[in-house]
Amino acid sequence: MEKEQLKKLIATAGGRRKADLVIKNCKIVDVFAGKIIEGDIAVSDGQIAGIGKYDGEKIVDAQGRYALPGLIDSHIHIESSYVSPEELGRLVVPHGTGTIIADPHEIVNVCGIQGLDYMMAAAENTALDIKFMLPSCVPATPFEHAGDTIDAKKMEEPITRENILGLGEFMNYPGIINLDDDSMDKLMVAKRAGKLIDGHSPGVKGYDLAAYASARIQGDHECATVEDMEERISLGMYVLLRQGSACHDLRKLVKGVTVENSRRCLLCSDDRQPKTISEEGHIDNHLRMCVEEGLDPITAIRMATLNAAECFRLYDRGAIAPGYRADVVLVDDLTAFRVNKVWLNGKLVAEDGKYLPEFRRQSIDAVQSSVHLKDFSKEKFRVALKSNRVHTVEILPGGVVTKKSVDTVKLDQNGEFVFDPEKDIVKMAVVERHKMTGNVACGFLKGYGIKRGAVALSVAHDSHNIIVTGVNDDEMEFAVRELEKMGGGIILVNDCKVVESMPMPIAGLMSDRSGEWVDEKLTALHEKAYSALGISGSVEPLMTLCFMSLPVIPEVKLTDIGLFDVTSFSFIPLEADEE
Amino acid sequence: MEKEQLKKLIATAGGRRKADLVIKNCKIVDVFAGKIIEGDIAVSDGQIAGIGKYDGEKIVDAQGRYALPGLIDSHIHIESSYVSPEELGRLVVPHGTGTIIADPHEIVNVCGIQGLDYMMAAAENTALDIKFMLPSCVPATPFEHAGDTIDAKKMEEPITRENILGLGEFMNYPGIINLDDDSMDKLMVAKRAGKLIDGHSPGVKGYDLAAYASARIQGDHECATVEDMEERISLGMYVLLRQGSACHDLRKLVKGVTVENSRRCLLCSDDRQPKTISEEGHIDNHLRMCVEEGLDPITAIRMATLNAAECFRLYDRGAIAPGYRADVVLVDDLTAFRVNKVWLNGKLVAEDGKYLPEFRRQSIDAVQSSVHLKDFSKEKFRVALKSNRVHTVEILPGGVVTKKSVDTVKLDQNGEFVFDPEKDIVKMAVVERHKMTGNVACGFLKGYGIKRGAVALSVAHDSHNIIVTGVNDDEMEFAVRELEKMGGGIILVNDCKVVESMPMPIAGLMSDRSGEWVDEKLTALHEKAYSALGISGSVEPLMTLCFMSLPVIPEVKLTDIGLFDVTSFSFIPLEADEE
Repeated sequence: MEKEQLKKLIATAGGRRKADLVIKNCKIVDVFAGKIIEGDIAVSDGQIAGIGKYDGEKIVDAQGRYALPGLIDSHIHIESSYVSPEELGRLVVPHGTGTIIADPHEIVNVCGIQGLDYMMAAAENTALDIKFMLPSCVPATPFEHAGDTIDAKKMEEPITRENILGLGEFMNYPGIINLDDDSMDKLMVAKRAGKLIDGHSPGVKGYDLAAYASARIQGDHECATVEDMEERISLGMYVLLRQGSACHDLRKLVKGVTVENSRRCLLCSDDRQPKTISEEGHIDNHLRMCVEEGLDPITAIRMATLNAAECFRLYDRGAIAPGYRADVVLVDDLTAFRVNKVWLNGKLVAEDGKYLPEFRRQSIDAVQSSVHLKDFSKEKFRVALKSNRVHTVEILPGGVVTKKSVDTVKLDQNGEFVFDPEKDIVKMAVVERHKMTGNVACGFLKGYGIKRGAVALSVAHDSHNIIVTGVNDDEMEFAVRELEKMGGGIILVNDCKVVESMPMPIAGLMSDRSGEWVDEKLTALHEKAYSALGISGSVEPLMTLCFMSLPVIPEVKLTDIGLFDVTSFSFIPLEADEE
Repeated sequence: MEKEQLKKLIATAGGRRKADLVIKNCKIVDVFAGKIIEGDIAVSDGQIAGIGKYDGEKIVDAQGRYALPGLIDSHIHIESSYVSPEELGRLVVPHGTGTIIADPHEIVNVCGIQGLDYMMAAAENTALDIKFMLPSCVPATPFEHAGDTIDAKKMEEPITRENILGLGEFMNYPGIINLDDDSMDKLMVAKRAGKLIDGHSPGVKGYDLAAYASARIQGDHECATVEDMEERISLGMYVLLRQGSACHDLRKLVKGVTVENSRRCLLCSDDRQPKTISEEGHIDNHLRMCVEEGLDPITAIRMATLNAAECFRLYDRGAIAPGYRADVVLVDDLTAFRVNKVWLNGKLVAEDGKYLPEFRRQSIDAVQSSVHLKDFSKEKFRVALKSNRVHTVEILPGGVVTKKSVDTVKLDQNGEFVFDPEKDIVKMAVVERHKMTGNVACGFLKGYGIKRGAVALSVAHDSHNIIVTGVNDDEMEFAVRELEKMGGGIILVNDCKVVESMPMPIAGLMSDRSGEWVDEKLTALHEKAYSALGISGSVEPLMTLCFMSLPVIPEVKLTDIGLFDVTSFSFIPLEADEE
């Protein structure tokens, strides 16, 4: 802020000059005192000057609606929305979101710091204020090949950037607990820069959790129970109540929010698909759910405003008070939280669900063409098994956790797997797509139900190699080749023809089109997955595959290096008898 | 923190190596969850590693006592204790104080930035962690001459210092409200450095308060009523509940602390004399009083710990949790808050009221010899009045606010004032002592009751020139000359002999001796003021004089320039008829 702006702000606050904008007739939610103040909100140069009675150059009548501070999503991976940062802004701002804390972990796994650069540049195009966390665990594990390896050294420059608030979720909690040198170096980078370190510690408790917390891990969005939550709060960690498209923890956790601990509680989505946003909303929906569960509305609002601002040290926001950013959300009431208008930085940016600013897009040149295969052909899918008793990756309900099963499969004379329509087991492969290593690893997937064709996608947490599965090597090869041509995305094939596809040219992770288009495409992909490929109705056909390569979630996963037993933390052979 | 320390901390937290220190058998106050946790506190290199069950190289049994985080005094002027920073540390640490936010406004008025340098250097000698605010209003007004003028330019270097948290109480609230350029420049210095701005706005309300708050003034310790408090909290300011040696606001204000707003409330003393500390304590006494007034003890403790740490962005303290500074205070209970032991930074620094570290002192060379008079003699006390109807500064109960009275006095043939034992009016003078301007201004003091001799002191808020009053010019001259020889302090004289004195060689504001010595001296000075000089028993003889030169407190004061009418904000003549 410059001196002249400061003078204008103070003069406006003092009622001695007309405000740039006055939002009249509000019920202002006072997050400091926990009460409602009836009055006007005066705005000067994008900041709130005062609340009370004010006159302005421009006057908008709130007609008695409630005015909330701009909402803050304390943890989200934009990439999981399959849309670009600009587009996510267009989708969530009309729901009252003013700020998101984004961890661009997925794109950095593909494009390295260049992926971060793209996200930060793209973020400049939206009214949504996107603050970033520097991904801390790229690759997520040493058991896979991602597009880059971000070690402590590579973090030194980005951690100092103004819009980088700290290190993103430190998923490698064993690395911290076990004093792994790389992890220590990364922590030190954040500490030396005076930046935050965000957490991720599902199921960790007791001494291990104390060890993790002692590194001053700021928060955790992976609490599954109220006990998890309480333990973390007492250790000084903020708890992020998560409600995303995939994980639904909010209703369970909100029962643990008390008058005593609520200031240490925040709201987040972790991931949020366009369909969820259009049907349910964003943080406005979190508020609605909190209130449905009996939480005091102002306490809920604080979790999405003041508490988040305090946690992330965003001193310029989180409240409607003099000198704060003029991020104001008008809602009809404090139960449904239907958003009427949204101002960010003093500008009206959404009205009745519509995003108002001109839509601009960052060039995606630097992050497209991210699918790089070497010597790829169906020969890479050959397995030449010595035994027909094999380990299979069995899909469990929910689709993220798997079971390590042993099954008998049909082999040809060369020991090659042959799909048996009577058995719900197919070949699955992970094809390295970043560094042209030529790596392809095969495994067997049980319970997916596919009867025809193949599915391939380049969204495969966290390294985002290509996952492909299908009823034979030809279909699988065709799917991978077509996906390569598309520059990544999701594809369904049958009889070596494309049945349906969604190109995701941004790092093979995000579409460059609208959320509505993504939603339509996903709907069509789902529909065709069941109808054309015969995938089991009890399985989510796409997201389930996306998680088949994530070697930190039990029980067994497939990376580009091979079949990985998460329980023993080691690679295992395909043949069950050789174990 | 270095990497090896971090590793040691994490290993200790994880229970995989012995802690340096374990404080066993505590009832730990969990300020995050608002509950009591029974367990041990493990310490590694001055930080808390974990709470729960731990083993340590050294073990101390807390015998079931309550463990509180180190207490924080959110606003204090060390100088008002009349002792050095090291000595204040010795006095308050045994009361559980771990951190104070000190505004060295008094010494900077005398010695400029050199005074700040001395205070910061001296602070290094005590276990008490002294954080500083850079005095924002030196001199306090343009109506007096202080030892230096600290403009925005002079603030640029000190504001960047690590232990300077921001600008100290911005007393010149009219300067902010009226967009005074100097004030704007000072605000900009803090804003550009990303530092805080502390407040001081007694009686300001409505639009003026909004104007003040819009500059993002962080807090205010000058609330007189619950209404003042509520208005400030809603405007985003923290409210500091003050209980000092002079001002007693806590019991009144604590009634305004609610479950909803308590996180925005802090505790402070503003000033705290050795006698008050030894008889009542420090922030431990604030806690005791809060609980006496019915406040939940954990809420009270939070005001002195977590809330203060959040307000001042001291993220390393304010709680007993892994990775926090090992500032731990053992108290017998949560009602009397009797302090048993204090660890700061993991070191045992006080036990049963005794300060344990070796006592070291910063050299005071740079800040002594601060009394510089030019051409001083009793001739300067001559007034040559044209009328015997004069303005008098009438002392009112409390001694800080005065009344502008008009009285008839006895004059000699030259128009010189003659003391009339029948009338409780004496001459008072302010003698400039910093820059050798030779300025001496005279006025008349009513209601002080002095019958013999004179009193002089070099502690005279905020410019700290010499204030002297007495029954005739000879006694007054003698008092000033003796005070000059002492290098400043407080002196009582009678028959041109010293009756009692307290040298204050540190800038003429602080003694270089112990708090106990200061207390004894003050007791003797008070006793002699009444017994030897006949000062009225209803008047505090020293503090009352200290405030006679502060031209921001109504109704009329005397500076080195002349008699100042605070209501009209202008100088007035001594003669009442000439007004």
